[in-house]
Amino acid sequence: MDEFQKLLKQKAEIVDAALDFYLPREAFPKRLHQALRYSVMAGGKRIRPILVMESAKLFGLSFEKVIPTACGIEMIHTYSLIHDDLPVMDNDDLRRGKPTCHKVFGEAMALLAGDALLTDAFSIIARNSAISGISLQAVLDVIDRISKAAGSLGMVGGQAVDIDASGKDIDEQTLLYIDRHKTGCLISASLWSGARLAEASESDLKTIDDYGERIGLLFQIIDDILDINGDEKLIGKRVGSDAKNNKNTFPSLFGYDESLQMVEKLCKEAKDLISSFDNNWFFIQLIEFLKERRY
Amino acid sequence: MDEFQKLLKQKAEIVDAALDFYLPREAFPKRLHQALRYSVMAGGKRIRPILVMESAKLFGLSFEKVIPTACGIEMIHTYSLIHDDLPVMDNDDLRRGKPTCHKVFGEAMALLAGDALLTDAFSIIARNSAISGISLQAVLDVIDRISKAAGSLGMVGGQAVDIDASGKDIDEQTLLYIDRHKTGCLISASLWSGARLAEASESDLKTIDDYGERIGLLFQIIDDILDINGDEKLIGKRVGSDAKNNKNTFPSLFGYDESLQMVEKLCKEAKDLISSFDNNWFFIQLIEFLKERRY
Repeated sequence: MDEFQKLLKQKAEIVDAALDFYLPREAFPKRLHQALRYSVMAGGKRIRPILVMESAKLFGLSFEKVIPTACGIEMIHTYSLIHDDLPVMDNDDLRRGKPTCHKVFGEAMALLAGDALLTDAFSIIARNSAISGISLQAVLDVIDRISKAAGSLGMVGGQAVDIDASGKDIDEQTLLYIDRHKTGCLISASLWSGARLAEASESDLKTIDDYGERIGLLFQIIDDILDINGDEKLIGKRVGSDAKNNKNTFPSLFGYDESLQMVEKLCKEAKDLISSFDNNWFFIQLIEFLKERRY
Repeated sequence: MDEFQKLLKQKAEIVDAALDFYLPREAFPKRLHQALRYSVMAGGKRIRPILVMESAKLFGLSFEKVIPTACGIEMIHTYSLIHDDLPVMDNDDLRRGKPTCHKVFGEAMALLAGDALLTDAFSIIARNSAISGISLQAVLDVIDRISKAAGSLGMVGGQAVDIDASGKDIDEQTLLYIDRHKTGCLISASLWSGARLAEASESDLKTIDDYGERIGLLFQIIDDILDINGDEKLIGKRVGSDAKNNKNTFPSLFGYDESLQMVEKLCKEAKDLISSFDNNWFFIQLIEFLKERRY
């Protein structure tokens, strides 16, 4: 494992431990708390919380100081997966190789577990204000930004367009909207939140936001490309399943070659943006990591 | 209409106008925003936001200053109704005499409309910090309290126990848990939030909280009693429907007479608590209003 992947793993373990601390263990109602813990602790790369922590560090704030916000964002991400997997949405039985929340706890409890994670996330994020050296205004700005990134004009907006688009031919603009909102918004918000808590300047916040926008899109395009040329054993699903399911993807709408060109362009733009900062090793490595991703 | 009901109506109109202002009207995705507006603007007595405003006023803060928080709480209340009505939960077709959200927009869109309202509520509440004379710490405390009141240890917790209890015989403690959490938590949090934004003292916050706890429970017990002796035309559903549906209610578990005694006791306690404050006319009237409720 290279240096970068080792760092991802170390940081993910820190996030796991913090989540384990924040989520009530033996609380009543028991089945509800079991359900939400089941989904949060099911593993996952913890990319979003790591982005919060690394972004804080980039602007001179110790990563430990932003852990409440990092965990809150991961809880919001997990809620979105639980609701997405419900029969009324994507109807998925498996997530990260394990039965989905509603398969284990029933649909009603899974709905409630998602609702609870989304709600509880905001009191965890608000806790960030109790940490020394964090400004109250910054925490309020972060709450505002995360709420917008996850809400009707952000992530939920992307899901709503995705639902309406399913089984239909869509244009490039609609695909870009879905991907920018379903995944992009929360990724940008993670980077922005770390930077805001570190009191980064307006112009630095803008730069990290623009970088985040490229990273979010890169993530999605490479996902779509992997469905064509990926290693089935590594990505854990059948190559070609998107085409078989008539899913609208970057290669199907923009063409395979143009999708590869978009990847190159986004990588270059992201690199240019992040080059204006010192100590940007993590963020340069992240671009390479996404580009070289095989699963 | 008496003075108190006139006040409720006037304040409800202010809340309606503010919600209309906060919710994006022509925003993309259109159907999602139509769905959430449909449910929020379907009417309703706006009790919770009025409690926020009156509680602020009780402690010397103009009610206009807490409108963002008042609206955020109403959005959270509305989300809970949308999700509660879903087929996987209570499977209700009608709400306030109109088809429920999922009947008009489909189940997936209703699920997302609820998610969006819950998420967007927190950025609306965070906006309260931009109002002059409101302390940032108070807004953060309010976000924390509302998140807890609505989350896994609050409202969603009550719903989870209710789901697990449905069709089973439960004991008195479980019924009390369900009602205290499903409705009580958000009602207390409304009163507490108005007081906290008005910088009420710790001991006053405790008193208004205790009053809220009685009001929440009163509301539920009287609801259950009305199902036995209410006027069908006024309550808008069949009298006796709880008994027919084998629903666990206060009269069925504690007995009819003891339920009436509980009402008397709660009214007296609430009145004693609120008597320690001047200008408590609204809060005294509220007790009478709940007690004399016929629908």
